[in-house]
Amino acid sequence: MHTSRCYVGSETGRLRRVILHRPGLDLERLTPSNREGLLFDDVLNVERAGKEHDYFAQTLRDEGVEVHLLRNLLADVLENSDARQWLLQQQCSAYFLGTKLADEVREYLLGMSALDMATYLICGLTRSELPGRSDSLVETVKGPYDFILPPLPNHLFTRDTSCWIFNGVSVNPMAKQARRRETANLRAIYNFHPLFSSQPFDFWYGNNDRKYEGATVEGGDVMIIGNGLVLIGLGERTTPQAVELLATALFQAGAARQVIAVKLPKARSSMHLDTVMTMLDRDCFTIFPEVMQSTECWRITQGSGNKSLKIESLGERLFDTLKDHLGVDRLRLIETGGDVFQQEREQWNDANNVLTIRPGVVVGYEHNARTVSRMREAGITVMTIPGSELGRGRGGARCMSCPFDRDDID
Amino acid sequence: MHTSRCYVGSETGRLRRVILHRPGLDLERLTPSNREGLLFDDVLNVERAGKEHDYFAQTLRDEGVEVHLLRNLLADVLENSDARQWLLQQQCSAYFLGTKLADEVREYLLGMSALDMATYLICGLTRSELPGRSDSLVETVKGPYDFILPPLPNHLFTRDTSCWIFNGVSVNPMAKQARRRETANLRAIYNFHPLFSSQPFDFWYGNNDRKYEGATVEGGDVMIIGNGLVLIGLGERTTPQAVELLATALFQAGAARQVIAVKLPKARSSMHLDTVMTMLDRDCFTIFPEVMQSTECWRITQGSGNKSLKIESLGERLFDTLKDHLGVDRLRLIETGGDVFQQEREQWNDANNVLTIRPGVVVGYEHNARTVSRMREAGITVMTIPGSELGRGRGGARCMSCPFDRDDID
Amino acid sequence: MHTSRCYVGSETGRLRRVILHRPGLDLERLTPSNREGLLFDDVLNVERAGKEHDYFAQTLRDEGVEVHLLRNLLADVLENSDARQWLLQQQCSAYFLGTKLADEVREYLLGMSALDMATYLICGLTRSELPGRSDSLVETVKGPYDFILPPLPNHLFTRDTSCWIFNGVSVNPMAKQARRRETANLRAIYNFHPLFSSQPFDFWYGNNDRKYEGATVEGGDVMIIGNGLVLIGLGERTTPQAVELLATALFQAGAARQVIAVKLPKARSSMHLDTVMTMLDRDCFTIFPEVMQSTECWRITQGSGNKSLKIESLGERLFDTLKDHLGVDRLRLIETGGDVFQQEREQWNDANNVLTIRPGVVVGYEHNARTVSRMREAGITVMTIPGSELGRGRGGARCMSCPFDRDDID
Amino acid sequence: MHTSRCYVGSETGRLRRVILHRPGLDLERLTPSNREGLLFDDVLNVERAGKEHDYFAQTLRDEGVEVHLLRNLLADVLENSDARQWLLQQQCSAYFLGTKLADEVREYLLGMSALDMATYLICGLTRSELPGRSDSLVETVKGPYDFILPPLPNHLFTRDTSCWIFNGVSVNPMAKQARRRETANLRAIYNFHPLFSSQPFDFWYGNNDRKYEGATVEGGDVMIIGNGLVLIGLGERTTPQAVELLATALFQAGAARQVIAVKLPKARSSMHLDTVMTMLDRDCFTIFPEVMQSTECWRITQGSGNKSLKIESLGERLFDTLKDHLGVDRLRLIETGGDVFQQEREQWNDANNVLTIRPGVVVGYEHNARTVSRMREAGITVMTIPGSELGRGRGGARCMSCPFDRDDID
Repeated sequence: MHTSRCYVGSETGRLRRVILHRPGLDLERLTPSNREGLLFDDVLNVERAGKEHDYFAQTLRDEGVEVHLLRNLLADVLENSDARQWLLQQQCSAYFLGTKLADEVREYLLGMSALDMATYLICGLTRSELPGRSDSLVETVKGPYDFILPPLPNHLFTRDTSCWIFNGVSVNPMAKQARRRETANLRAIYNFHPLFSSQPFDFWYGNNDRKYEGATVEGGDVMIIGNGLVLIGLGERTTPQAVELLATALFQAGAARQVIAVKLPKARSSMHLDTVMTMLDRDCFTIFPEVMQSTECWRITQGSGNKSLKIESLGERLFDTLKDHLGVDRLRLIETGGDVFQQEREQWNDANNVLTIRPGVVVGYEHNARTVSRMREAGITVMTIPGSELGRGRGGARCMSCPFDRDDID
Repeated sequence: MHTSRCYVGSETGRLRRVILHRPGLDLERLTPSNREGLLFDDVLNVERAGKEHDYFAQTLRDEGVEVHLLRNLLADVLENSDARQWLLQQQCSAYFLGTKLADEVREYLLGMSALDMATYLICGLTRSELPGRSDSLVETVKGPYDFILPPLPNHLFTRDTSCWIFNGVSVNPMAKQARRRETANLRAIYNFHPLFSSQPFDFWYGNNDRKYEGATVEGGDVMIIGNGLVLIGLGERTTPQAVELLATALFQAGAARQVIAVKLPKARSSMHLDTVMTMLDRDCFTIFPEVMQSTECWRITQGSGNKSLKIESLGERLFDTLKDHLGVDRLRLIETGGDVFQQEREQWNDANNVLTIRPGVVVGYEHNARTVSRMREAGITVMTIPGSELGRGRGGARCMSCPFDRDDID
Repeated sequence: MHTSRCYVGSETGRLRRVILHRPGLDLERLTPSNREGLLFDDVLNVERAGKEHDYFAQTLRDEGVEVHLLRNLLADVLENSDARQWLLQQQCSAYFLGTKLADEVREYLLGMSALDMATYLICGLTRSELPGRSDSLVETVKGPYDFILPPLPNHLFTRDTSCWIFNGVSVNPMAKQARRRETANLRAIYNFHPLFSSQPFDFWYGNNDRKYEGATVEGGDVMIIGNGLVLIGLGERTTPQAVELLATALFQAGAARQVIAVKLPKARSSMHLDTVMTMLDRDCFTIFPEVMQSTECWRITQGSGNKSLKIESLGERLFDTLKDHLGVDRLRLIETGGDVFQQEREQWNDANNVLTIRPGVVVGYEHNARTVSRMREAGITVMTIPGSELGRGRGGARCMSCPFDRDDID
Repeated sequence: MHTSRCYVGSETGRLRRVILHRPGLDLERLTPSNREGLLFDDVLNVERAGKEHDYFAQTLRDEGVEVHLLRNLLADVLENSDARQWLLQQQCSAYFLGTKLADEVREYLLGMSALDMATYLICGLTRSELPGRSDSLVETVKGPYDFILPPLPNHLFTRDTSCWIFNGVSVNPMAKQARRRETANLRAIYNFHPLFSSQPFDFWYGNNDRKYEGATVEGGDVMIIGNGLVLIGLGERTTPQAVELLATALFQAGAARQVIAVKLPKARSSMHLDTVMTMLDRDCFTIFPEVMQSTECWRITQGSGNKSLKIESLGERLFDTLKDHLGVDRLRLIETGGDVFQQEREQWNDANNVLTIRPGVVVGYEHNARTVSRMREAGITVMTIPGSELGRGRGGARCMSCPFDRDDID
């Protein structure tokens, strides 16, 4: 019998527990005029997106995965008054809101139930929602529908904000301003929620208040190949300095023995490594060929001195290296389906971003019919979910899930 | 006789000491392809810009102003090994450069003379300039002419990075990423240079390592009207939360009694308050009418409680309020000269951004002929300087100077 | 009994015949990388969009509207060899394709069935689809999946490319390069299809090969209020010079007595007048309040001389003027539903862009629940259609229909 | 003795007659807010730019080149009433200005002297300059300082708008909207000015009113290597379809025997071929190595049938091909001077864009010191001109000159 633990040993071992975020009011505040700042291409039909998300969650539950919703976890945490105080200090500092408004917003939120507070900390707060008016210059210059706390609609992509790597977690300094406040919510959960605080695990990265300068990392770029190997994409979100710091932490703790850094084009369509490849089985990956056929990579291992690293160029031999590491004769690489137009469209709609729930069994969007067919022809079991709205956010099943309990590769 | 002190009492009192930065290698590394990231519209002819800057500095010296060049101040400071260590920690952290490269760059710079180190910390360092190759992923992914330390060409605008307000200084958290490292250089100077460390003064804001979130302020937005009044522009660079924090510090120390916040359009052409108005004499301002004719403003004073502020709308009555505060019968407002096309061109070329060196005597660019004429017709003495290249950076004499010793308004 | 005629007398009289375009291969060639040039915010699920469009067409047919599909009309026309030659001259000139490739493409298309040719002229042609290789520099520099004839996915919005105004039609010079070739397809239909060539009607504008310089007009900006009045929006697509030319043609023929020009913000969200208002009944309009509450307008009537016009400012009195013209006591103005975020979202999703099929009976998207409710509360019959994909193209039922037979206002 | 003729036989043969345009009011109307639409990076100091241009013109005159100023040529032409009528039809059509305003502007301009009319047709006309107010919707919606006729500041680059190729001229359909009206001014000059109308020459391209669709060409892309060879750049301004049409015309007339098309990056810094290479002597070119070291090219010759062309790939063998054609043993290729930053800066400032006035003698900007040195070291005589303002328009001596009388290569 499996004993619950906070541990992610692979991309393909049995998935046991996961954090999801059901979209709601946060996405209802997304509009044509604020969507760009909030990193969305278009507004979503939130009611339908919510139903699609329910279908996704239920699919996981039906397969025995324990699903935890972010808002509930945060609400649990906010029953704890230490956690409340800590998180409000993080989310409502004088530097963010000005002295007076910071006090006022904290006081307003403290008067709420834990669930309501969690809702506001995720979905944002407009000036018109705040009762009373203070002597705050910050508030004075805002219009009634301007945000005091902007919503965090990208919480939908729970994969990015934190990521478990073997027996620890990185609470990620995010690349984009619009997502930075997500990390504080996750830190509150991991530091204060009994689900985690009762367990032994490490924080690999990000669990303090310092400036991270350029050293950002997002979970969509991090893949736990297993057997001591982690793959990390270097694109527009994750930087080499963060990879060095994370690798150093992993090596020092003996949690991993090597990290392979994979260079990605700095483009929205390949914003994370998992938008162009995911692992479906011990010997099987799905890839977007246009990007993955010729990507440069480097192996990072422990150097001779303390905190020192060894960097070795692997050229374009990513999949050969993975084959050797995984100890298989050959890798099955399932490409995005269709002609060149269809490939580009299906990749854009997250055809290569599936969530593996046990070896050879994955969850993906039904709308990527050509790629799904190819996976099935290759013997993969694909459980499809609707995503005509969910997918508008540019994230598939892997992006929308944060596993924190998953078996090692067998 | 004047005793040297670090104190700026006004915009128009006799100017005694100032920090300038002569453009050099930092601007030679500005290219058509990196200029946008470095906040320049076009590349400059650096040799000519340097000569124009010399002319500016000499004009000030001829009028009895003591000119300190930033690079020299920094070089002086870097003779001090505590200062060296401190600044290298700031400029070359593992979060910025990765673990290994941070060590390597620090070691390389430590082996230099103080002046060379100052030069690199201002003008940047390319990968090809760094001897040897380390096991650094950050370094590995760079090309030979990529920057390890990007140059800081905006140091030219010494006004912004720090600003003296009465008997203290704000070392400003800058709005744009490209300028953030300038602040560390200034902090090194103010904390370690004998010119300052031997003097009593306060740090109003910015002198620590925390995250400033949105609370940014730049000196081009800050005007010391005098008699306890400070004017601060709210545009694309300075935010209301920073104004609150700065005002609170000033009020707590009794250094100022009121701050007036002035709303500016969020546009490059009015990026700081001093691009659309400067003060020429006790009763005289130059203004760009398109912006300043109808700008909203608020008066901020000490509130009843500790750290509390009082905010009062002044509507569009900025100049009436200034008139009353200055105790004059009427203000002379000298508008940008010419027809609507010429006004827009001269404002863009810093016609309204002059440096007052004593009441009614200012330094400005000769190329803004129509505005200069208007000032002279109004009885102002305008000492013109050439600026066909200097002005390309979008900054005039006020932008390019940081007074730290100036008399009160008489 | 109604005798078929090509005539549109109003926005609200019984709708009898309409041109629609069912999306297909044209939209399958829309990709994340070409969508911006093709004027789409995101790619669409074409299969679902096609089904939604079928539902729209069937809804109209069920209400007795005769639906003509653009591709079929074009295929009919291309059975006629004069029409074939004419349209290929238009679509495949040497100036567009180079001498040699123009010949080659014409020859290739001439060898096809009329329906296939129609398909290529709407959906585009890639280099890899063209058999053989010619000595063409244009072809040589292209990659295999580059377009020789770009697709015309905006044909979906049949409203814009041509618009019937009383007893004539304007075949519109389009504002955006990506839509200019649509007009040739429509000219082929109106000049050669028996449905039209057998009927007496006028071409008001656009039916020749000249350069139209800035004089562009799109049908989404043109509303046939009736009783001699036409409303035309002036936004980013329709220009005042085109309004003058169109008004002159209408007045000379006695087809209209006045045109009211309505100024719109130059923004994507209000790209045509019918994105911010449509007419639902003789006394009823739906409006997006943010734009329509304060829009400036001018009345244009026949001047004293030949071809001369009289221009009269109406200030912001658009709806008062319409009320008087329509002879009703008051107008019912139904605003977009919901709070400020929901209004912006529903307007963006075409809540105000409904197609009136007879007085007080309209077709609109079901996803705009709040606006639909308001219409129903006001006594309007709203027949809803699904549009989660169709609506991604930023066009509602009015945008997607080109009536050419509609009764006068009663 | 040389008999004047309209003929350009080469890039390096003795230059005898040239058209320049002295910048004036056209550039005074360039402002920070309209510069982007008018294709300028920054506004220029017009007075200084004018003086620099005078220096350029005088340098040419001193070397025996006959300089004709565009405004004077146009003024001469406008003494001819046929030319007046023709040009006003071109520049002030009802499609461009609306019916009424077109009449009004034509009438206003017809009442002027030829020189004034030429000035307005080059420098533009604002609404406030037009006396009286007509019943024009176009005029009504404009503000007082909006342009009725926008200025044509890019006339400065006379190279582009028309280009002489052996015994004929191409009056070029320009790629950018902001430059299209320049062509009509040039057509007026070539069709009506005695300097040209008295001479036999051909119009190769552009001398009619048709739509040119994508078939645009600009003279900065066209180089007359001589001995029957023309080089044409394919970048963001000149398209392959235009190259085909121009080549066909040249071959039909027997004026040229081959055209080599050279692919350029679609970037502002290499907007024309002459921004990255010019020819200095029979065996000598200056090149920007980053672009020219590996550019693909194709040879185009007369095909077997009438109007047919033969296309042959030359791979990256441009300079080998030129060497063979020119019959020299080796070509001297003078690269942009300095390190990688300086090269990029000097190329941007037109270091590679010099005007050859006879074999081995060129005119170029003095500010490109490193490239000028390299040329001199290679034995080229470089006559330098000041260009700190002129150069801001992104054009050097070649860009700013349109030769119409130049000897063959010896």
